[in-house]
Amino acid sequence: MTDTTTLNREGIVALPQRHRARLVNSLSGFKSANLVGTADEEGRTACCIVSSVVHLGSNPALLGVVFRPPGDDSHNYQNLSTSKAFTLSHVTSAFYESAHRTSARYPADVSEFDAVGLTPHWHGDDQARFPAPAVAESPVRIGLTVEDDLALPNGCRFVIGAIQWVDFQKELQVEDGFLDLALAGTIAIGGLDAYHTAERVARLSYAKADRPLESRADFRDGWD
Amino acid sequence: MTDTTTLNREGIVALPQRHRARLVNSLSGFKSANLVGTADEEGRTACCIVSSVVHLGSNPALLGVVFRPPGDDSHNYQNLSTSKAFTLSHVTSAFYESAHRTSARYPADVSEFDAVGLTPHWHGDDQARFPAPAVAESPVRIGLTVEDDLALPNGCRFVIGAIQWVDFQKELQVEDGFLDLALAGTIAIGGLDAYHTAERVARLSYAKADRPLESRADFRDGWD
Repeated sequence: MTDTTTLNREGIVALPQRHRARLVNSLSGFKSANLVGTADEEGRTACCIVSSVVHLGSNPALLGVVFRPPGDDSHNYQNLSTSKAFTLSHVTSAFYESAHRTSARYPADVSEFDAVGLTPHWHGDDQARFPAPAVAESPVRIGLTVEDDLALPNGCRFVIGAIQWVDFQKELQVEDGFLDLALAGTIAIGGLDAYHTAERVARLSYAKADRPLESRADFRDGWD
Repeated sequence: MTDTTTLNREGIVALPQRHRARLVNSLSGFKSANLVGTADEEGRTACCIVSSVVHLGSNPALLGVVFRPPGDDSHNYQNLSTSKAFTLSHVTSAFYESAHRTSARYPADVSEFDAVGLTPHWHGDDQARFPAPAVAESPVRIGLTVEDDLALPNGCRFVIGAIQWVDFQKELQVEDGFLDLALAGTIAIGGLDAYHTAERVARLSYAKADRPLESRADFRDGWD
């Protein structure tokens, strides 16, 4: 038997602030790593890393993003509240340090794209440019419009985005629709500050009570 | 340059249903893998795998979970709506196939714990037993009470849980509070059915605009 640490609510509250933040941020399991991209009405860009993107549905295609309680310097939240548009771009092992640095506080007139050395990617042509930039360095990019914006009990916002377009490296997609994120180098976040790549274990067949599972070690083999 | 596939909203809607589900489920990035555990008023247990747990805050310690639009056979959602309690247990590479099989449809009188061969773990003593079971096989277990339950535009529910207790293998925790989920074997999900373990890249220091990042390849080294 391995030793177990047990904490109740009072024990968690009593922890030093940063220790508590590192522990509680580890409890959800691995988190996705995306850059939110936005622009203001003059086209000035902003981006920030988030670990809080969650799948909501495929039809209609919806994603949710949790934003901290917005303050004066929450440029991305302010921009998407005005433009009703934002992008998500997967963070990969090729540029995760730049992505992490978007979480620093920069002067109001500095775009995080410039500050950390990432490249805005504008979707669409001059006649119909999507009003939020994605990240050119990313292998999976998504354009979304704000479908809803819910206030959470702790002051955070839960922004629901409807997917308007997506582009991704063609080689990532398997015939049955699946994107091989391990091949993309997409990052998984642990806690507040730990970056991981993923290693395949298997793809499993749709679970039925009366049938054994099928397991495929090769992610490129789909199910259709 | 690698080839890029681009789809707009209409192109996504036009995809065959399963192909679309596999693609859109890949877009959020890696997803956490947890088992939700609940019990009804007679103590009959239920559990199901979810890939939709998201961190909401450390103080108070809150997690969110998205549930599909609940139907008659949504035992876990029904149980937590009545008991106001549920657990989350990290899924690891040691039992991910059993965890996956909880997503099958079993007869109403069959607990998924029994059906797939997982062991209920009851927190607390006989006088004050937490009213929802966790998973004994899991290295990280969390007990939560229902703080809020929001209806989403597509019929899904966003359940907000307040953490009441947590237990985890002592060896996973680093001195600064962080839990080493790669060491735990915690799974990251890609798409609908792809299971991955994580491989460390680095932990990065808190980002400041005027200071270079520090990077630590050894996850056991904390920041305090």
